[in-house]
Amino acid sequence: MSEKAIQDYYPDEVSHCYGCGRLNEHGLQLKSHWDGDVTVACFQPQVYHCGISGYVYGGLIASLIDCHGMGTAAAASYRAEQRDLDSHPPFRFVTGSLHVRYVRPTPLGPPLEIRGRIKEIKGRKVTVGVTVAAEGRICVTGEVIAVQMPDHMMPGQGDEPTGSN
Amino acid sequence: MSEKAIQDYYPDEVSHCYGCGRLNEHGLQLKSHWDGDVTVACFQPQVYHCGISGYVYGGLIASLIDCHGMGTAAAASYRAEQRDLDSHPPFRFVTGSLHVRYVRPTPLGPPLEIRGRIKEIKGRKVTVGVTVAAEGRICVTGEVIAVQMPDHMMPGQGDEPTGSN
Repeated sequence: MSEKAIQDYYPDEVSHCYGCGRLNEHGLQLKSHWDGDVTVACFQPQVYHCGISGYVYGGLIASLIDCHGMGTAAAASYRAEQRDLDSHPPFRFVTGSLHVRYVRPTPLGPPLEIRGRIKEIKGRKVTVGVTVAAEGRICVTGEVIAVQMPDHMMPGQGDEPTGSN
Repeated sequence: MSEKAIQDYYPDEVSHCYGCGRLNEHGLQLKSHWDGDVTVACFQPQVYHCGISGYVYGGLIASLIDCHGMGTAAAASYRAEQRDLDSHPPFRFVTGSLHVRYVRPTPLGPPLEIRGRIKEIKGRKVTVGVTVAAEGRICVTGEVIAVQMPDHMMPGQGDEPTGSN
């Protein structure tokens, strides 16, 4: 598995995301890595990240799927161009859509394993399938459509783009 | 608009949700209300709730849609039985699925208005359509399928239910 996380290659100006930005000290700081042809992240929920007591909050899981999906889309785009993650120009994606299916309640306590798999790369859009497992058992499945961030969404640029993350 | 929030009627033992539990001091404490035939909630994101700087984090928005959808499902179920929100037995829902479409980036700064509309009540499942608007403009649309929480998911009961929130 790669040592430095995919998100740690994001340029500073787009590294404040609450879910995965290394520069957001209040955030979740999710870290995703390549593991062969799939991506993987590990996340330890806090005791207050509960939905019903004893189970992980569904909105937190949606957030992990979101950020892991965007990271996977970026990493896959570099690979498709046979470029390293620190090469230029950088890839950064925002969320077009997010679909989450809660197969079974996710127990709160063990670390969660989030795995991503590229389903399709088409133009500026990448579709990523994601699973979230606890103790080796898949509890949640998801699919995200990631859209390359328009230049005018870059901090300091214009406004009115499409997508959010 | 009703004064006491829908979530404030949840029994104590299911009021620790990170997104909307009044007893979770670390959480978002979303509050949803009836407004005629629809439900509405208002939420003020914090500066650290950003995705790309200047825009609201998509995972936070997914969380608001999730909890507002569950609250709407509960409230609609009482109405369908012509019962008050504080009558027994209580309704509490968990998330079966969550679908979010980011129509345009959500500006970070103004309060967000989350509106819910019942699409279908069928057995133990309720489908809720949700919109999230900033400054009167819809930025995100969502749909949640809420499933009545199985009795064994109640804190202190058995295990292995279906759903999460």
